[in-house]
Amino acid sequence: MIELTLIGIGTGNPDHITMQAVRAMNAADLILIPRKGKAKSDLVDLRRDICAQVLNTPVRIVEFDMPVRAAQGDYTQAVHEWHNAIAAVWREQIALHLPDGGRLALLVWGDPSLYDSTLRIAERLSGVTVKVVAGITSIQALTAAHAIALNPLAGSVTITTGRLLRAHGWPNGADTVVVMLDGGCAFEALDPAGIAIWWGAYLGMAQEALEYGPLATVGPVIAARRAELRASHGWIMDVYLMRKEQNDG
Amino acid sequence: MIELTLIGIGTGNPDHITMQAVRAMNAADLILIPRKGKAKSDLVDLRRDICAQVLNTPVRIVEFDMPVRAAQGDYTQAVHEWHNAIAAVWREQIALHLPDGGRLALLVWGDPSLYDSTLRIAERLSGVTVKVVAGITSIQALTAAHAIALNPLAGSVTITTGRLLRAHGWPNGADTVVVMLDGGCAFEALDPAGIAIWWGAYLGMAQEALEYGPLATVGPVIAARRAELRASHGWIMDVYLMRKEQNDG
Repeated sequence: MIELTLIGIGTGNPDHITMQAVRAMNAADLILIPRKGKAKSDLVDLRRDICAQVLNTPVRIVEFDMPVRAAQGDYTQAVHEWHNAIAAVWREQIALHLPDGGRLALLVWGDPSLYDSTLRIAERLSGVTVKVVAGITSIQALTAAHAIALNPLAGSVTITTGRLLRAHGWPNGADTVVVMLDGGCAFEALDPAGIAIWWGAYLGMAQEALEYGPLATVGPVIAARRAELRASHGWIMDVYLMRKEQNDG
Repeated sequence: MIELTLIGIGTGNPDHITMQAVRAMNAADLILIPRKGKAKSDLVDLRRDICAQVLNTPVRIVEFDMPVRAAQGDYTQAVHEWHNAIAAVWREQIALHLPDGGRLALLVWGDPSLYDSTLRIAERLSGVTVKVVAGITSIQALTAAHAIALNPLAGSVTITTGRLLRAHGWPNGADTVVVMLDGGCAFEALDPAGIAIWWGAYLGMAQEALEYGPLATVGPVIAARRAELRASHGWIMDVYLMRKEQNDG
């Protein structure tokens, strides 16, 4: 029997880690760390740093190469096959390192509940019970960095993806919209009039970058800065929040 | 000059605290803890417990009585006046305990960005710079307890309030809806057909209560259990997530 704990580790600042995550990591028999290729090696390093910082008991740490998602073809189909491939690698590692069962931990960027596939991949395994330890998300790192509220007073918030924003525009009836998983600048598809944006990249990390202001003027600034940062670091992870101005604004 | 740090402390489990929060608390000159009357004394106790657990330097801790929000009259107006009253109490405490400036910390339930007034109250003070330390929200404690994802694969999420759900029904185009600040059971205003619910109260605390299933059958169970728990504990804080079933569901 395998007890699998998915541990949210926050978004780049090792100090995002919770006491609950520290305890869960120390209680594990095995921690699996995915290697994602050279470009994203900063993210692997973060997991290594966190292990070095918080482990005070001998826990076995094993790194494995993450399968790569097919870039062509149907998106949903490609994601589905990719998740199957990752589950197969987990099964291999479990058979190799925990043949008699035990406690396996996976360190999940942000929080395992938010735009992360680990829970869905875990469902593909049998004989596994799953526990979740929450972690600070990039949305929280964004609002903290800008010292802003997520929701308007007594209002609602829509969290969506770059893909959905491009396809459907501003969500119906929303006054605050958070966009995640945007591989580009999906906000360019909107009429910027009356919209303000708060943007952040590499949140919590040393190279954290922030911009905010009216979308009409700051949108192009973000697009240029994003391209530049991506080129210099080899990768980028960013998130942004947009609000429609009140009628009195 | 006052440096005010709003520190998210998570939702009832002292182990929700992050290393960043621990460092910020120990760096403070003064921590102000609000007393909220007998019924919610569990929440004051949690703040005291966290201070006792994480402080390893002499930090002054001062408790003050929270002003009470007017229950009658216009809601927005009442909230506005209440925030003014709280800001006035903070000013008093700052003048009394930090007359020459310094670092003030406030421990915020959950995360300061999410349905919390502390940021808006802080804007009412002059000569204060505000920093935010993110904390685990009740939404994350809910999804972790049920080991579920917040968003459907490649889908969006709407976070709203009990008040808005009652007034406007299921948000336009949403497939996942999270309801916060629901003083009752606003889900009763919906046609339950095809909706599943994941509910949690006192998340992270010893008295944590969870229910999930089809809204049609589990809705009444939650309503009864909520009334019972509220009566026995004297207060309740809960949150729930609802999803519309896929067409194939």
